Amino acid sequence: MTQALGRSARKRATILSAGQSLFLANGYQGTSVDQIAASAEVSKQTVYKHFGDKQELLLAIVEEALESTVTPFLDRIAALAETDDLEADLTVLAGEYLRAVLAGPVVQLRRLVVGEANRLPELAQQYYDRAPARALGAFADCMSRLHARGLLSVPESAVAAEHFAFLVVGRCIDQALFCGGPQVLAEMDVDRHIRAGVALFLAGYRPK
Amino acid sequence: MTQALGRSARKRATILSAGQSLFLANGYQGTSVDQIAASAEVSKQTVYKHFGDKQELLLAIVEEALESTVTPFLDRIAALAETDDLEADLTVLAGEYLRAVLAGPVVQLRRLVVGEANRLPELAQQYYDRAPARALGAFADCMSRLHARGLLSVPESAVAAEHFAFLVVGRCIDQALFCGGPQVLAEMDVDRHIRAGVALFLAGYRPK
Repeated sequence: MTQALGRSARKRATILSAGQSLFLANGYQGTSVDQIAASAEVSKQTVYKHFGDKQELLLAIVEEALESTVTPFLDRIAALAETDDLEADLTVLAGEYLRAVLAGPVVQLRRLVVGEANRLPELAQQYYDRAPARALGAFADCMSRLHARGLLSVPESAVAAEHFAFLVVGRCIDQALFCGGPQVLAEMDVDRHIRAGVALFLAGYRPK
Repeated sequence: MTQALGRSARKRATILSAGQSLFLANGYQGTSVDQIAASAEVSKQTVYKHFGDKQELLLAIVEEALESTVTPFLDRIAALAETDDLEADLTVLAGEYLRAVLAGPVVQLRRLVVGEANRLPELAQQYYDRAPARALGAFADCMSRLHARGLLSVPESAVAAEHFAFLVVGRCIDQALFCGGPQVLAEMDVDRHIRAGVALFLAGYRPK
């Protein structure tokens, strides 16, 4: 029984991996369930048994990718609220956030979801809610706490969260959607970029 | 002769319009030159004669859309450099910029180009160079001029341009790629959003 479950879980993982590779290489519309089944060396029936249909398979791939990239980061944001050296820790977190957002596979998956947003609006909404919106919510909670501790003066935590996040990743993620995350990272001076964003943020939100 | 030219230009415009509608509805991969020819009521040969192939047709559609949305805006940015009321004019321009970027067809075309960026990287690079990068360049020139006039204190004009642009449109364009431009606009208090972004920008860049 345990062995049978193990085999099923392995098949599921193999289908997810094959699906992600094919979707990223050929697009959602350019990929068939037949191709995914062949690449995963399972029958088409097995794909349908695990995932229902092609759209649900893409949803599962997105869920899995977000779970492994977004969730650990939320803890990092929560930890910032208890900092003893705000500028230094804000700078470190900004660098981590930028690198996470610009990672090659993250950008490619974003492109895939954005490219299908006209035809699969629920998937796109789900992606937004589970990734950018969750990160912004965690930043907002963190800003509230830093305000309560007297380290920042933040009249509206959601606005401050948005300002911080998009001073750090705004231009970079926008450019990465067109030019690719690794290329954007390679072309920029990350430290200098981060420091300039953090400096402007603190100029506006440090208690006077 | 004039009449013949007129007919050719009209056919070209009809093909561009039919192509844009079909690409936005069905995606680049989901649209064939046959369908575009049928929708424009011309022969497939006529499409090829005007545009070479499907990729060049998409390029021409993007070029035309950017020409009509980006170019007029560059003049507006240049005019800001000569302002006599910086905060007020910055606020007005920010609102115009946000609404231009979130316009339904602009967001849909962005989604299309981003969705094909893995397979058509030259098209995506061209889009980035012709739209976001040109706007950022115009903002940077404007920031330099405002610095020279003593209205702002801007050590690096490209950085200040990026900060201004993404305080205004960063979260909104990111969300719009997933949820749609009109929906994002409808859900937000544009004036309040703009004022908060301009206030932070001026907190950092107003001469001390």
